[in-house]
Amino acid sequence: MCVTMRTLFWDDAAQALKMIDQRRLPEKLEIVAFSDYDGVTQAIRDMTVRGAPAIGAAAAFGLALAARASKARDAAGLLRDLEAAAASLRAARPTAVNLAWALNRMMRVARAYTGASRGLPDIILGEAQRIADEDVAANRRMAENGAGLIADGDTIIHHCNTGSLATVDWGTALGVIRMAHEQGRRVHILVDETRPRLQGARLTAWELEQYGIPYEIISDNMAGHFLQTGKVQKVFFGGDRVAANGDVANKIGSYMLALAAYDNRVPVYSVVPTSTIDLTLAHGSMIPIEERDPQEVLDIQFRGERVVPRGARARNPAFDVTPARLITALVTENGVVYPPYEFNLPKFVTP
Amino acid sequence: MCVTMRTLFWDDAAQALKMIDQRRLPEKLEIVAFSDYDGVTQAIRDMTVRGAPAIGAAAAFGLALAARASKARDAAGLLRDLEAAAASLRAARPTAVNLAWALNRMMRVARAYTGASRGLPDIILGEAQRIADEDVAANRRMAENGAGLIADGDTIIHHCNTGSLATVDWGTALGVIRMAHEQGRRVHILVDETRPRLQGARLTAWELEQYGIPYEIISDNMAGHFLQTGKVQKVFFGGDRVAANGDVANKIGSYMLALAAYDNRVPVYSVVPTSTIDLTLAHGSMIPIEERDPQEVLDIQFRGERVVPRGARARNPAFDVTPARLITALVTENGVVYPPYEFNLPKFVTP
Repeated sequence: MCVTMRTLFWDDAAQALKMIDQRRLPEKLEIVAFSDYDGVTQAIRDMTVRGAPAIGAAAAFGLALAARASKARDAAGLLRDLEAAAASLRAARPTAVNLAWALNRMMRVARAYTGASRGLPDIILGEAQRIADEDVAANRRMAENGAGLIADGDTIIHHCNTGSLATVDWGTALGVIRMAHEQGRRVHILVDETRPRLQGARLTAWELEQYGIPYEIISDNMAGHFLQTGKVQKVFFGGDRVAANGDVANKIGSYMLALAAYDNRVPVYSVVPTSTIDLTLAHGSMIPIEERDPQEVLDIQFRGERVVPRGARARNPAFDVTPARLITALVTENGVVYPPYEFNLPKFVTP
Repeated sequence: MCVTMRTLFWDDAAQALKMIDQRRLPEKLEIVAFSDYDGVTQAIRDMTVRGAPAIGAAAAFGLALAARASKARDAAGLLRDLEAAAASLRAARPTAVNLAWALNRMMRVARAYTGASRGLPDIILGEAQRIADEDVAANRRMAENGAGLIADGDTIIHHCNTGSLATVDWGTALGVIRMAHEQGRRVHILVDETRPRLQGARLTAWELEQYGIPYEIISDNMAGHFLQTGKVQKVFFGGDRVAANGDVANKIGSYMLALAAYDNRVPVYSVVPTSTIDLTLAHGSMIPIEERDPQEVLDIQFRGERVVPRGARARNPAFDVTPARLITALVTENGVVYPPYEFNLPKFVTP
């Protein structure tokens, strides 16, 4: 990973939010700039930026862009413009709660502000910057809290991408793995390719190359075989929304992976900042699951050739819910949370 | 499906085994001809022909080609040539037992033959033809035996390809589905794309188009979500080798799919001819699992662009073992077999 570059950052000279275009990796490391919130909404929707913590921070900067662009003459008008921008950003993707979490926090700051309205845009930008900085700090603490769960010599299955690219920097589940590696423990990662968008094969493999951590890519459907034959000691993934009972909505395929781990008595860890925990939802079945364009499933080539018949149809749910009974522990910046989650989670989440 | 064409067939005028090249579908329906057993061995290895019953029949015809090409002057010499060809064909793929089953049957006939040695090649070809014809007949009986398990309105998840293309004609699991459809029951198929070679997205989708059966392609890792949300009534797949205790080795991903079905109380049916049942192996863990070239995992493109970092490594086990405890029933040409399989399977298999 580019040690000096965040996945997304504010460029003050350009008055723009800059991001790594994650759709171009690993072939090209390309930085794209956004000067209005519409562009940021679109970037979240088309997955130029993805990963629950990263889209939360991107949305916060999107709101800062809206504040700077507003032509409103007073604070009330500016707040109305911000509300409109927040509604647009919030609707970009429904499953990860971090988007709503970051926007709610930004709007609370905006509403609480009592100074001259021309001062508000800088207050808003400052809060976005704080969200980004806090994300990096939370990731480091999660990594420290979780690294002890990994033993020397572990083979770990990792789903989707949860590294620097999924966050502002450092990462969640992959951050824990990276910390264990930096602490000198030898790990081997089986990287779920993570169909349909292939964030594992594309982004996690690329990050692991940068970190010098040995890995092999597998199709998602191979995890069961390696678990069943005793080759795997841990399963790690992130999370897009955690319900009050500990159910975890995460990238599609997490549920089947957790089932296979559970069936072979291999522990499953979901690594999430507390901003991903939504205590307002009692169960995972209440989490909205985004269904994306079926073309993401159909537009695949094997050895350069078209795969599916012309006119083929597909389904494309982007997330699923892993029941809490399959999750060994949740790793947060405030500590490792074990069951019963209904009882323990509130102790770790600052309201 | 081309009603008048088998997936593989003997062309007497050309003195050649002809096959649909399954690597070209669905873009091109291309027939390739083989005049020697080396070509057939290679075709089995590179998956020009695939599917346990189809490769069994292909190997039988491969042996017929070896008999015709032999320059041996007596029966003993011809038998030696056949043994060598059988060894080569048998080694092409290790997991499906049908390959060994067909070759053993062919060699028994060859060894039992007591006539003039010049008559043996036609005896051998006749036996290969019988294996092919019996496969089609067995598939029809499996379909009749299994169709009653499907109810009107069922949504069914199907893994890999088990249709006409996986057999000489008609198919195993897909044959059951096709029979239920022809009997007038409305079914909807969620087609597991089946990474890495994508036989579901490529071949099963293509066959379902021909049969007029409605379907949607899903990534393998999406099955759990549809099962968990109550959208699926049955799971069907084939089998490459069934152990005496009912454990089923089948295309990679079958185990995770069966786990997800079991977790949601959805029945799982494996449809296999009795030639796929190997009573000499007590447990599935004794079945050899083929590991194929990692390039099959890595050589994927999304929207026409390279996915994995240069130099990326991968693993590629082609099959996994679904424990018998997850299999609701085995559908064979001799009837539907329920647990306890150790006790019931021998009653269905003719030794």
